[in-house]
This record gives sequence, C-alpha cells and structure tokens, in this order.
Amino acid sequence: MNSVPTRRRIGILGGMGPEATVLLMSRIIGMTDAHDDADHVPMLVDNNTQVPSRIKALIEKTGEDPGPVLIDMALRLEAAGVDALAMPCNTAHYYAPRIQAAVSIPLLDMIELSADAAATAADFQKSGNPLVGILASPAVRATGMFDRACARRGFQTAYPADQDSLLACIRAVKAKDSGPESRDLLQRAASELHGRGIKVMLIACSELSIISDAIPKDFGSIDTLDVLADAVVRFASAGTITEAAAADMTLAPDF
Amino acid sequence: MNSVPTRRRIGILGGMGPEATVLLMSRIIGMTDAHDDADHVPMLVDNNTQVPSRIKALIEKTGEDPGPVLIDMALRLEAAGVDALAMPCNTAHYYAPRIQAAVSIPLLDMIELSADAAATAADFQKSGNPLVGILASPAVRATGMFDRACARRGFQTAYPADQDSLLACIRAVKAKDSGPESRDLLQRAASELHGRGIKVMLIACSELSIISDAIPKDFGSIDTLDVLADAVVRFASAGTITEAAAADMTLAPDF
Repeated sequence: MNSVPTRRRIGILGGMGPEATVLLMSRIIGMTDAHDDADHVPMLVDNNTQVPSRIKALIEKTGEDPGPVLIDMALRLEAAGVDALAMPCNTAHYYAPRIQAAVSIPLLDMIELSADAAATAADFQKSGNPLVGILASPAVRATGMFDRACARRGFQTAYPADQDSLLACIRAVKAKDSGPESRDLLQRAASELHGRGIKVMLIACSELSIISDAIPKDFGSIDTLDVLADAVVRFASAGTITEAAAADMTLAPDF
Repeated sequence: MNSVPTRRRIGILGGMGPEATVLLMSRIIGMTDAHDDADHVPMLVDNNTQVPSRIKALIEKTGEDPGPVLIDMALRLEAAGVDALAMPCNTAHYYAPRIQAAVSIPLLDMIELSADAAATAADFQKSGNPLVGILASPAVRATGMFDRACARRGFQTAYPADQDSLLACIRAVKAKDSGPESRDLLQRAASELHGRGIKVMLIACSELSIISDAIPKDFGSIDTLDVLADAVVRFASAGTITEAAAADMTLAPDF
C-alpha cells in the first residue's frame, strides 16, 4: 500500500447551487494546514449553474435528466487531469453511481462518506439507538439515498416530522435569509430529533450547512459538507491516507 | 452594437491565493440578481495553488517565471469554452498583457477597470485632487502597474508612507488573523491617505479586501475585487453592456 502523493488535484462538480460550491471550497481551505498558496489543494471547479433542475427531475418528474450533463462535466474534469471528483450537493448524489461508472477516477461520495461518519461517531456507538437523524430537503428524503446508505451499515434513518417547516427554512436561506427565523426553524427540527433520543444527526443540505451553528453543540450533528471537505483534504494530502483507503472512499454502490 | 447574450461563462485564473478566488466568487454570487441556480453566472475556476510565486519572480528576482503557467491556464480555459477571463489577484496582473496576447477572448483586467472606476468616482471628480490612494502590497507598488494605469487617465497615485505596517497587515490576514490589530493597521494606512486630502483610494490587495470594512465609509475607498466582480456580472448578464463596452473592458495595454 503506497501513500498518496502530495497535492492531488480535485475536480468539483459545482454550481448546485453556487453558494454550496463556495462553501465547500472555503471549508477545504479552512481545513488545510497551509502557510503559503502552494500548500493549498489545487481544484478545478466547474461551477455549472445550468445543470437541469434536480428537483424537477426527481420530484416533479418533469424536465431534462441532469444525469448526462453531470456525466459530461465529470468526463471533462477527468480529461483535464484531476485525480478525484467531489460534488457539493446532497440531492445530486442521486446520480453518483452513474457518474462514477462513467469515469475512472474516484468520486468522493458525500452520502457514503457521511453514512460512514455517522456509523463511527462515538455518540452513535454509545447511544445504542439505531436511528440517525437526517436534516435534509424533502427531495433528498424522497430519493431514499440516505436510507439505503444507512441500512447497508445496519441502522435506520429518522426525519423531522415537520418537513414543511424544514423546506421553508431551506427556501429562506436560498433567498439569502439566514436570519433568526431561519435559524429557529432549523433549531426546532434538530430539537425534535434530539427529543426522540437521537444522538447523531446529519446536516444533509448545503443551505442548512450555512446556518448549522443554530444547532446546539451537544446534539451530535455532523455536517455532510464538512465530511466531504475533510475527505478532499485527506485525499489531496500526502501520507495521511493510503491508496486502499482512498479506494474505499469512492464506494458508490448501485441502488 | 448587439447586446451580450445571457449567461456567458467566465473562466477564473485562480488560486493566488485560494481565499481571494473564493471571495471573488462570493461577491459575484452576491451581486447577481438570482432567484434560482440557473440565474447565476457559470464559472470554470482553475484554483491553481501551484502557480510559481509572483513575489519571488517580481521582487526577489529569483524562481520560475509565472507567466507561462498563467498563459497555459488561460489557454486551457479558453479551449474549455469560456467567454472571458478574470484573475482575482492584483499582483498577477503584471502578466495580464502577456495573457491577453495569448488568447482571443477578453481578460477583464482588474487594474484597468479599477483605474477607470477611480477616475470616474464622483468624489474624485469633485475633489480636484489628482492623487488616487493605493492600498496594496509593496510588490504591486514595485511593479508600478497602478501608476501607469492612472497616469494614462491623467492622475497620479499615492501610497501610505508606512509600507511596512501595511505589509505586516497583509501577512497577518494571510495567516488567518483578521482581528482588531490587522483592522487597525489598515484603518491607519487609510487615515493617513485621507489626512493628505485624498478623496478616492483603491483597495488593491485581496487580503485587504477581506477586512475592507475597517476603512471608514466616507473615505471613498473602492475595492478592486468588487470592481472585478461587477465587471464579471455585467459581462455575463444580458443587455446590460454592449459588445463594444465589453471590448473596452478588456484593455490591457503594453507597459
């Protein structure tokens, strides 16, 4: 098992939305131990704001299939020489298996990595509670992608009862309202899960990542965007993960 | 004169440093009138943290010439189909004429655009003072690029007397210290220029852009990163500028 060479270049399948792309980049920069520009992770970012709507395709069952556009973006990034792909959008991971099948570089799969993080979280291990909370858009819930990823690891998912309030919160943040009302909606959703004895919950929507500080520290929340940023930094850095571990990170099983 | 078609794609020559690249992207997003992902400016971002050091090449006169790397990045972005280039780094604009000469798409030149913004600023027009303040790194000063851009428009530049303090401030922000001490250093440099009767000053270093709120509002400061973000949004948007105006924005004269 060889260690991974330094400064591997990461291709970002971005623009869904652009704020989430910028947030991932910021967190990657923040997590990198850097003293000069050259210490930072090189990234080629396709901030493609014109990917067909995932909501329309997955929920409303109308409009163009985003899959071929995402695959084309992935192929272009691969051709440009990046060493791995990352996609800062939970919903778009519905297409992750098709993207992974189209390229020969790893896609650092945010859903699989986050399910791993939840499964290994100390609080979850201690709690004995087989439920992991999912704070996500109804679109993510409808695809069942977290349910399958968690089921493969032997635990189940739980969603806040009031999905409408959570969607209202997500919509407010998309409309650049990250104020007290939005934070209160997120805090209430998290509190409901916490009140049901859930010790680990995934923040699985990048709009919620923006206001994640609204969730009390002791609620055991794990931000999927942080999980992805951490995977990017580890993949791009020397000696911290092995080739085999890198291969493990790319799991994007069929479902 | 035809209006520019909608959603032109912008190529970003980034990574110098990565924080400045993220800051430009954030400001472009913030300046865009958007209700959905698709309303945002598509960007292809080469966040290349491995560009040879501009400081070493320009000031220390050692190390590899960054020019060929920047030209290669520009050519690759052009080949990928972007409609214009933007480079969020004042110092790297020393290489702007060589980059512009190598591609057939416009480079939205931050130095030229900022000199234009200073020349047309109402406060500057009113003041009758032929001096424009430049808050920049000693490297930018040493290249004289703002001096030439301003001279072509009939006015002169002025720099804070205490360049060492300004450099200390820039270095602190690079080391992720954006606290009160760094802000105080910037505020003092700006106050010195203001005290000399200077009515317009350019924030011409992306580290200073991060803490630009330290400069009192009535000092007439113009952030070069805002000027570039505004140019990107105007170039990418429909109907707001003409082809001829877009061509004017690309001036990167020899010097």
